[in-house]
Amino acid sequence: MAMSVSVIQERFVDIRNNKFFEYFVIAVIISSALIIGAKTYPISPGILELFQVLDFAVTLFFLTEIIIRMVAEKDLKSFFSKGWNLFDFIIVVASLVPVDESEMALLGRLLRIFRVLRLVSVIPELRVMLNAFVKAIPRMGYVSLLMFIIFYIYAAMGSMFFNEINPELWDNISIAMLTLFRVATFEDWTDVMYETMSVYPLSWIFYLSFIFMVAFVFLNMMIGIVLEVMQKEHEEFDRINGEGEAGEVHWIREHTEAIEQRMARMEGLLEQHIEEQWALRER
Amino acid sequence: MAMSVSVIQERFVDIRNNKFFEYFVIAVIISSALIIGAKTYPISPGILELFQVLDFAVTLFFLTEIIIRMVAEKDLKSFFSKGWNLFDFIIVVASLVPVDESEMALLGRLLRIFRVLRLVSVIPELRVMLNAFVKAIPRMGYVSLLMFIIFYIYAAMGSMFFNEINPELWDNISIAMLTLFRVATFEDWTDVMYETMSVYPLSWIFYLSFIFMVAFVFLNMMIGIVLEVMQKEHEEFDRINGEGEAGEVHWIREHTEAIEQRMARMEGLLEQHIEEQWALRER
Amino acid sequence: MAMSVSVIQERFVDIRNNKFFEYFVIAVIISSALIIGAKTYPISPGILELFQVLDFAVTLFFLTEIIIRMVAEKDLKSFFSKGWNLFDFIIVVASLVPVDESEMALLGRLLRIFRVLRLVSVIPELRVMLNAFVKAIPRMGYVSLLMFIIFYIYAAMGSMFFNEINPELWDNISIAMLTLFRVATFEDWTDVMYETMSVYPLSWIFYLSFIFMVAFVFLNMMIGIVLEVMQKEHEEFDRINGEGEAGEVHWIREHTEAIEQRMARMEGLLEQHIEEQWALRER
Amino acid sequence: MAMSVSVIQERFVDIRNNKFFEYFVIAVIISSALIIGAKTYPISPGILELFQVLDFAVTLFFLTEIIIRMVAEKDLKSFFSKGWNLFDFIIVVASLVPVDESEMALLGRLLRIFRVLRLVSVIPELRVMLNAFVKAIPRMGYVSLLMFIIFYIYAAMGSMFFNEINPELWDNISIAMLTLFRVATFEDWTDVMYETMSVYPLSWIFYLSFIFMVAFVFLNMMIGIVLEVMQKEHEEFDRINGEGEAGEVHWIREHTEAIEQRMARMEGLLEQHIEEQWALRER
Repeated sequence: MAMSVSVIQERFVDIRNNKFFEYFVIAVIISSALIIGAKTYPISPGILELFQVLDFAVTLFFLTEIIIRMVAEKDLKSFFSKGWNLFDFIIVVASLVPVDESEMALLGRLLRIFRVLRLVSVIPELRVMLNAFVKAIPRMGYVSLLMFIIFYIYAAMGSMFFNEINPELWDNISIAMLTLFRVATFEDWTDVMYETMSVYPLSWIFYLSFIFMVAFVFLNMMIGIVLEVMQKEHEEFDRINGEGEAGEVHWIREHTEAIEQRMARMEGLLEQHIEEQWALRER
Repeated sequence: MAMSVSVIQERFVDIRNNKFFEYFVIAVIISSALIIGAKTYPISPGILELFQVLDFAVTLFFLTEIIIRMVAEKDLKSFFSKGWNLFDFIIVVASLVPVDESEMALLGRLLRIFRVLRLVSVIPELRVMLNAFVKAIPRMGYVSLLMFIIFYIYAAMGSMFFNEINPELWDNISIAMLTLFRVATFEDWTDVMYETMSVYPLSWIFYLSFIFMVAFVFLNMMIGIVLEVMQKEHEEFDRINGEGEAGEVHWIREHTEAIEQRMARMEGLLEQHIEEQWALRER
Repeated sequence: MAMSVSVIQERFVDIRNNKFFEYFVIAVIISSALIIGAKTYPISPGILELFQVLDFAVTLFFLTEIIIRMVAEKDLKSFFSKGWNLFDFIIVVASLVPVDESEMALLGRLLRIFRVLRLVSVIPELRVMLNAFVKAIPRMGYVSLLMFIIFYIYAAMGSMFFNEINPELWDNISIAMLTLFRVATFEDWTDVMYETMSVYPLSWIFYLSFIFMVAFVFLNMMIGIVLEVMQKEHEEFDRINGEGEAGEVHWIREHTEAIEQRMARMEGLLEQHIEEQWALRER
Repeated sequence: MAMSVSVIQERFVDIRNNKFFEYFVIAVIISSALIIGAKTYPISPGILELFQVLDFAVTLFFLTEIIIRMVAEKDLKSFFSKGWNLFDFIIVVASLVPVDESEMALLGRLLRIFRVLRLVSVIPELRVMLNAFVKAIPRMGYVSLLMFIIFYIYAAMGSMFFNEINPELWDNISIAMLTLFRVATFEDWTDVMYETMSVYPLSWIFYLSFIFMVAFVFLNMMIGIVLEVMQKEHEEFDRINGEGEAGEVHWIREHTEAIEQRMARMEGLLEQHIEEQWALRER
C-alpha cells in the first residue's frame, strides 16, 4: 500500500514537471480570465449556463492541480514553505466559495477574479520580477512613512483652517487627506486652491509647499526603488556571467591576488638563493 | 546582354551610394510630408490639382528609388533580409493604392501619410536610435504583461461593482479598462471616484491602490527601458573607443594578463637558475 | 549637593538611553497625532474635555522629556549644537502656547500639529534620510534660482500682454507666476491658452516654450537630487562595507600599492646580487 | 596719448575684476527685475516717474558696464569671441530701444524684461550649468526630430479623420498638432477622445498609441539629457580631483603601467645574469 502511494507521488511529480502540463495550466488560467471578462458583457442565458459549467470545470481543475503539486512535494511543510505555493493555495481555496447563493455571490465572483493573479505565479519571468520588487519594499517603507507624515500634517492644517470653506473637501482629516492626494495628482487642484484663497489669500503657500514636498518624496521613492531593483538585477547577472565592467573588475581582483602570491614566492626564492650564495662564499 | 545588366546594376549602385541622391531622397520625403500637411488646409482646386500631380510624381520617384536599390543589391533575398528595406518596400507599395477612387480614397490618403516614416529609415542617426529601442522591447514585454494583468483585474472588479452606478464608464471590461487608463493619466479621475464613493464610500481604496501600482509599474517600465537603451549605447561606444572608466578597466585587465605571463616566465627562469646552481654545487 | 546633581544627571542619561523610554516617546507622539486627527471629527463635549486633558499630559510629557535630555547632556551648549535637539526644543517650546485663549487658540492648535514632526527626529532611519536630503540642498539652490528666473521673465511678459484679457490670471507679476505654476502642472492650462490665443493667435509659443523649459529644469532638479542622494548613500555604504564594484576597485588599488613596494624590494635584491657576483668575479 | 589710453584700459580691467563691482552689477540687475515686476501693479504717476528715471539709470549703467568690459578686453574680436559677451551685448543694445514712443513702447518693455537674463551670465554657477545644458543639445536634436515626426503623422491622420467632428480641434495640421500636445499633457484629453469615439468607436487606439509613444520618447529625451549632463559633470570633477571610483581606476591604470615597466627591467636583469653565469661556467 505504501508502495502504491509512492508510485502515485512519482507520477504526480512527472505531471507537475511536464512542460505540456504547465502550458495547459496557463491556458486554463487565461480561459478563466476570458470567462470573467465575457461575463461583464450582456450575454444570453444559454451562454451564461455554459460559462457556469466552464467556471466549475476551472475550479475543479485548479483544485486538482494544487492537490497534484501538494502530493508531489515531499510533505506539506515543504510545500507551504514556498511563498508562491501559499499564494496559489489561498487563491484556489478562496475561489471554492460558491457563486450561486445570492448572499455570497458577489464575494465569490470577486475571488474568482483574483485567479488571474495565478498567471504571475505560473510564468517564471513575472515571478522573478515580482521577487525583485518585493526585495525593494523595505527601502520603500520609511519613504512611505515620511510621505504619510507630510500628508497627515497638511491634512490636519487643512481641516483646521479650510473646514468651514468647503466641508466636502476638508471636513475631517481623512477627507482632507483624500483631497490632498487629489492635489498631489494635479487633478483640478486650482479649483481647490482658488476656493480657499478667496478666504485666506496666502493659502497658495500651503498648496505649493505641499506639491513640492510630495513630488520630491514621491519621485525619490519611485526612482529610488526602480534603480535599486535594476541595480540588483544587473549585479546578479554580472556575478553569474562574469560580464561587463563589474565582471572585469572581479577578474582583476582575483588575478591580483594570484600575482601577489606568486610574487611572495619569487621573493622567497630570491632571498633564499642570495643567502645560499653568501653562505657558499663564506665557506 | 548579361553584361549590360551588370553595367546597369553598377550604375544603380553608384546612384544609391551617391551622397547627393540621398539628400534628394530626404528632400522628396519632406516635400511629400508638406503636401500632406498642406492638404489639411482649405485649398483652391487649382492648387489641389497641382498637389495631385506632385503626389503622383513623389509616388513615381519612390517607386523608382526602391527599384534602383533592389537592382543595386545582389539579389532580392539579400535586399529583403535587411529590416529597413522591407519597411521601405511596404510603405512604397502601400502608397500605390490609388487616391482617386471614392471607395479607397481615405485608405490611400492614410497610407500616403506613412511615407513620412521613411525619414526614419533614410536618416542614419534616427535608424540607430530606433534600433536601440527595438532591442529594449523584450524587457518591455513582461512588464507590459504585468501591467495588463493589473488593468484586467481592476477592470473586472470595476465593471462588477460600479456597473449600475455609471454604465458609460463601467459597462463592460473593455470600457472599464479605458476608464482605468483615464484614471491612470489623472484625467478628471476624482469625478469618477466621487461618483462611486457616493455608493461605496470605501471605493477610494480601489482607485488609490490602482494608481500606486500602475504609476510604479509604468515608471519602472519607462525608466528601465531608457536606462537600458542608454547603457547599451554607452557600452558600445566605450568598447569601440576604449575610453572612459570601462575602457580603463578593460585596459587593466589585459595588462594584468600580460603581467601574469611575464611573471610565470620569470619564476621559471629563477627556479631553473637556482636548480642549476645547486646542480653545479653538487658536482 | 553637587553630587546629588550628578546622580540625577546619571539617572537621566540612563532614562534617555533606555530603549523602552524611546518606544514610549514614539507612542506618545503617535497618540498626540491621533488626538489632533480625532479633533477634526465632530466629537461630544465629554470626549473633547478628555482630549484637552490628554493634550495637556502630552505637552507636560514632552517638556519633561526634553528637560531630561537637556540635563543628561553635559551642558546646554553641547545640547544645542546638535541640529535635531534644537529642532525638538523649538517644537516643544512652541507647543506651550495655550490653546484655551480665544485669540491664540488657532496658533496653539497649529503649533501642536507640528509635534507630529518629532517622529522624524525620534526614528533614526528617518533622521538619516532627511540628513541626506539636506546635504543635497546646495545643488538644488542654483537650479531653483534658474527656475525662478524663467518664471519671473514669463510672468512679466504674461502680465504685460495678457493683463487686459483676463486680469484674474494675469493682473500682476505674482498672480501671473501662480497662473504659470498652474500651467506647469498642466491644470486646465489649455483654457488659459485658448483664452489668450483668441487675442494673440501665436501665444501658444509662449506656453509651449514655457512648458518645455520648466519640465526640463524641474526634472533635472528632481532626478539630479535623487541620484545625488542615492549615490552618496551607496558610496558611504561601499566605503564602510568594502562591498560591490567600488569596494573591489579600492581593494585592487591597495594591493597594487603593496605589489609595487614588493617589486621595488625584489629589484633591489636582484641588482645587489648581480653586483656582488660581478664584484666576486672581478676579484 | 596712446599711453593715456592704455592707462584707462588698465583701470577698466581693474574695475571689471573688482569683486565689489561684480556684486554691484548683480544688485543693479535685481533692482531692474524688481522695477519690471513692480510696474505690473497699479502704481501712482509719481512712482511711475521715479521708475522711469531708475529705468533710464539702469540702462545707462548697463551701457557703461559693457563699454568698460569692451575696453578692458584687448580688442573687440576677442570680446565677441566669448558667447556670453555677445549675449550681454545683444541684451544691452536691445534694451536701448526707447520706451516712451507709443509705437515701440511694448517692444521696449519686452526687451527690458530680458535684462533679467543677465543674471545667468553674471553668476558663474548658472553659467556653468547652462553651458552643460548647451553641450547636451545635439543629443536632444534627433530625439526632438523623432518626436516631431510622430506628432506630424498623428496630426495628419487626426485632421483627415476627425476634421468634421470638431473643426476647432482638428481643422488643419497645425491646430491638430496643438490638440495632440494637449492630449500629451493629459489636459482634458478624454473629452477629445470621447467626442471622436462617438463617430469612430475604435479611435481610442489612436490616442492610446500616441500617448505611449510620446510618453516614451519624451521621457527618453528628458532623462537621457539629464543623465548625460550629470555624467559629464561628474567625469569632469573626477578627472580634476582624481577622486571616486573612476579616480581609483585611473590610478590603478597608471601604476599597472609602472609595474609592467619595472617587470620588463627585472626580467632583463635576470636573463642577463643567467646568461653571464652560463658564460662563466662555459669557460
